[in-house]
Amino acid sequence: MNIQAVKLDDESNAVVVLDQTKLPTSRVFLTLTSIEQIWEAIRTLRVRGAPAIGIATAFGIYIAMKSYDTESRDLFYSEFKKHKEYLASSRPTAVNLFWALDAMEREVVEFSGDNIGELKTRLLHVAERIAREDAEICRKIGEHGLTLLKDGFGILTHCNAGALATARYGTALAPVYLGYEKGMKFHVYVDETRPLLQGARLTSYELTHSGIDMSLICDNMAATVMKSGKVDAVLVGCDRVAANGDTANKIGTLGVAILARHFKIPFYVCAPLSSIDMSTATGGDIIIEERPPEEITEMWYKERMAPAGISVYNPAFDVTDSKLITAFITERGIVYPSFKENLGKILSV
Amino acid sequence: MNIQAVKLDDESNAVVVLDQTKLPTSRVFLTLTSIEQIWEAIRTLRVRGAPAIGIATAFGIYIAMKSYDTESRDLFYSEFKKHKEYLASSRPTAVNLFWALDAMEREVVEFSGDNIGELKTRLLHVAERIAREDAEICRKIGEHGLTLLKDGFGILTHCNAGALATARYGTALAPVYLGYEKGMKFHVYVDETRPLLQGARLTSYELTHSGIDMSLICDNMAATVMKSGKVDAVLVGCDRVAANGDTANKIGTLGVAILARHFKIPFYVCAPLSSIDMSTATGGDIIIEERPPEEITEMWYKERMAPAGISVYNPAFDVTDSKLITAFITERGIVYPSFKENLGKILSV
Repeated sequence: MNIQAVKLDDESNAVVVLDQTKLPTSRVFLTLTSIEQIWEAIRTLRVRGAPAIGIATAFGIYIAMKSYDTESRDLFYSEFKKHKEYLASSRPTAVNLFWALDAMEREVVEFSGDNIGELKTRLLHVAERIAREDAEICRKIGEHGLTLLKDGFGILTHCNAGALATARYGTALAPVYLGYEKGMKFHVYVDETRPLLQGARLTSYELTHSGIDMSLICDNMAATVMKSGKVDAVLVGCDRVAANGDTANKIGTLGVAILARHFKIPFYVCAPLSSIDMSTATGGDIIIEERPPEEITEMWYKERMAPAGISVYNPAFDVTDSKLITAFITERGIVYPSFKENLGKILSV
Repeated sequence: MNIQAVKLDDESNAVVVLDQTKLPTSRVFLTLTSIEQIWEAIRTLRVRGAPAIGIATAFGIYIAMKSYDTESRDLFYSEFKKHKEYLASSRPTAVNLFWALDAMEREVVEFSGDNIGELKTRLLHVAERIAREDAEICRKIGEHGLTLLKDGFGILTHCNAGALATARYGTALAPVYLGYEKGMKFHVYVDETRPLLQGARLTSYELTHSGIDMSLICDNMAATVMKSGKVDAVLVGCDRVAANGDTANKIGTLGVAILARHFKIPFYVCAPLSSIDMSTATGGDIIIEERPPEEITEMWYKERMAPAGISVYNPAFDVTDSKLITAFITERGIVYPSFKENLGKILSV
């Protein structure tokens, strides 16, 4: 996968992002040189996917501080805090955004004895480390996941947990990209993923640009594709994994898991350890965001597709019961049931 | 349900149809006075749903023959044959279209001794009978189906098998409309039904106009609605039922049936006896139409929603295994398993 959703152009002091709101129609790279532009890009989903948001934030803080001209550490720190608070307001629920900001702040506080030039270099290194570690995590998920796949497999995926959402490889798509690099052939069935169409717009785009065979389907076609025997494994990402293995992910994931169980197809959740939340006991404790009706009735359309004023139910996520999940694929290895026991174990390695 | 998708205006010698391609944005009634206009309305799906197509065809032939000025029975018959062939070319796979045309032709042939005026009246009566019988079948399906529902039920439906597809009441929605007339309250969850959005555009429209509580959902939200306990029964229509009970219907029906089974929710197929095809042994014998990729990637959208040139799989129907079906609701009563035995029985009553 040769698309980088977010990268630093240190020479021109800019963060370069692929504008995901323009995909798949246009491939537009934005050169962001101010903290305001970074904020806007995150806010309006030009950059999306928790890891990619974290990376954009870290690079954003870095370029802002790099161009801040002072020799006073106090001024430097108060300027940093101002930018941190501002970026934190861009998408208040994106955990990786806060991680990235906190990691940057720890550096400023810990190395307050350094001169400003040294401090700027340290911030660069932290931002680069965040991006590098994300790529490593994805690569390791790919390596572990690949042990579960065979050459020629048909794979079904839902939403976009690919390169566009991360530093590289993605999570759910990492095993596919890694296998492809090793010369393996897969055919990926891509759920379009209503209402926001991340499958149709983003997953289709990155797979096609990487040369991987795929077919786009509507979400309601997954059952018939599975029935025809064309799907050997399901790979999905996740937004949060509870301590018992219940998993919140993009709306529609639960349905895919039930279909996979019915057709005896393994259902794998690709989960960086950071997405496992031992403080959430079960899926019942995860609050599901409900989003505006217009996403379903008119957002993408030439004209509205449902009568005005009707009642619409539009949950953004659903929770897949742990008993429907064959295994979690993490950067430290594959976790099988009992999840309650084994998720705790892998976190404490 | 007070919307009539197709009706005859005998005084002005016209077939009046509600243009379903304009729904839900506009409610446009077309007054069709020529056989060419009827053909175009069927061809371009302004009239859709097998029963509604049959009724439009019968009324269409009638108005064309009524205005044909001749005293010669030979000329009358050859004019009839010309129109019949022409209308038959509008949608070559719609079974009810051919039934209607054949029923009209039998009348012309059988009563060739009548004068032309009498023959025209006979054609009117056949066309009216086709419409009346369809309404009766739907009403009876409603009555039988209603015995399976309780006041306050949550009902999930897929696609549009409602009043817009038939003379009145619809098939899958008939129990809902009939219950509503009797003062019962239901809440209907309407799958939007990608890619052609019959649920969002048509079912939402007719339920809302009838005053029935409903919520529109994306197809991939059905699992989470069922999991929340809000669905007490699933009602769907059908395109063809094989002798063993395997049922072809709009793409996505199979998935809904599997989810219903998982959550132990009864799954009912509303099936006029005419849709049961004893010459088709199993669902494996039903050929599934594949439709153009553009329906998924660009048809409704402001701009295309998936990269150009990618592979798309777009089956129009799927086959639900008979073992996933709780019962068929027909105009002669409810059919439970074993379907192989009991479908044959009800047909031979």
